[in-house]
Amino acid sequence: MPTVQGVVLAAARTLFGDPVRLVGASRTDAGVHALRQVASLATESALDAPSVGRALNATLPADIRVLTIADARADFDARRRAVGKRYAYLLDPASVATPFLRRYAWHVPRPLDLGAMREALAAVRGAHDFSAFCAAAGRDAMPLCHLRAVHVRPRKSCLALVFSADRFLHHMVRNLVGSAVAVGSGRHDPGWMTTVLELRDRRLAGATAPAHGLTLLRVLY
Amino acid sequence: MPTVQGVVLAAARTLFGDPVRLVGASRTDAGVHALRQVASLATESALDAPSVGRALNATLPADIRVLTIADARADFDARRRAVGKRYAYLLDPASVATPFLRRYAWHVPRPLDLGAMREALAAVRGAHDFSAFCAAAGRDAMPLCHLRAVHVRPRKSCLALVFSADRFLHHMVRNLVGSAVAVGSGRHDPGWMTTVLELRDRRLAGATAPAHGLTLLRVLY
Repeated sequence: MPTVQGVVLAAARTLFGDPVRLVGASRTDAGVHALRQVASLATESALDAPSVGRALNATLPADIRVLTIADARADFDARRRAVGKRYAYLLDPASVATPFLRRYAWHVPRPLDLGAMREALAAVRGAHDFSAFCAAAGRDAMPLCHLRAVHVRPRKSCLALVFSADRFLHHMVRNLVGSAVAVGSGRHDPGWMTTVLELRDRRLAGATAPAHGLTLLRVLY
Repeated sequence: MPTVQGVVLAAARTLFGDPVRLVGASRTDAGVHALRQVASLATESALDAPSVGRALNATLPADIRVLTIADARADFDARRRAVGKRYAYLLDPASVATPFLRRYAWHVPRPLDLGAMREALAAVRGAHDFSAFCAAAGRDAMPLCHLRAVHVRPRKSCLALVFSADRFLHHMVRNLVGSAVAVGSGRHDPGWMTTVLELRDRRLAGATAPAHGLTLLRVLY
């Protein structure tokens, strides 16, 4: 399966020849979207940055676009220099799944208690060991994350859950969403999420929400 | 190329057997989207309406959905009984085309004078012979339409032009949009659209905007 990173790297190599180095700030799972991914690109091309951007856009398929581009210091690394990320997870609460949202939102056709979801998510804000919401125990050597903000925002045709943190563990947003939906559906009390967090046991948390509802919104520097 | 009407009709025939009659309120061009198309379906099935809707949704591909369904009088015809329609046309004004909008918005990467577009479109509101904005002269035997409302609405990442009328001629919204963009780009004064309307000559109007930016929002009864 082609990856966005692979396609951009191939385009850069075609245009500028080797050596090309490309580092994306966020390694998202297959099926996850990105509105403003950030990548550092090292090339020996003599073109200026805007020309590099135009050349890439002329080569890339229409579903991948360089939105802005600028010169950076030679040692800039988009992943290591990132100080935070913001993700949105969309839920489609309509009884019949909206066709226009089917690739961007998780269809959850039952009433959700937004107050309970807000309470549960607010209680896990802050700096914690998020092992309970990590894909596999021990996979992330550093399980400490500072979840700075969580918002539950009803939109016209969907529900957006927005998460900001200094860093995220593997599947962390999708696991927080799966657990929040379990709370919103009445399967657990809001306080349950705090208990799961404190016990640091992945098996206690809710199911992992599907990848296609998740979108990387911003990388912060 | 499969049509939405053809796919729904095939699903209904598979489920309910012949005779099935299906009439969509709006015959949209290939590439045009519909949020809430209305169709009348006549079948001899003994199922109640909600069960017919569930059976269709279980059979249809995920990009076509029956959102609501209700019993109607035997002589109800979704097309003939419609008293109005509302369409939105989306423009993507970003310098680089937004990948998430590329199937739903026309990419117009230049500054648009929204005031001039609003003035031009407001001047063609009302009941007029819209032959100048019809696909081919003489194609519509009745060129009179009552354009009840036109709105130019800047959204977060795109510009929405919303049109409400009792009826629309073939390509009418796309031609009005093409001409409005010509005005917004400074190629014509706002008063030019009124002149084109009055002269009823298709060749004077702007280019037809591409189909994929157009979405049927509502059918009114």
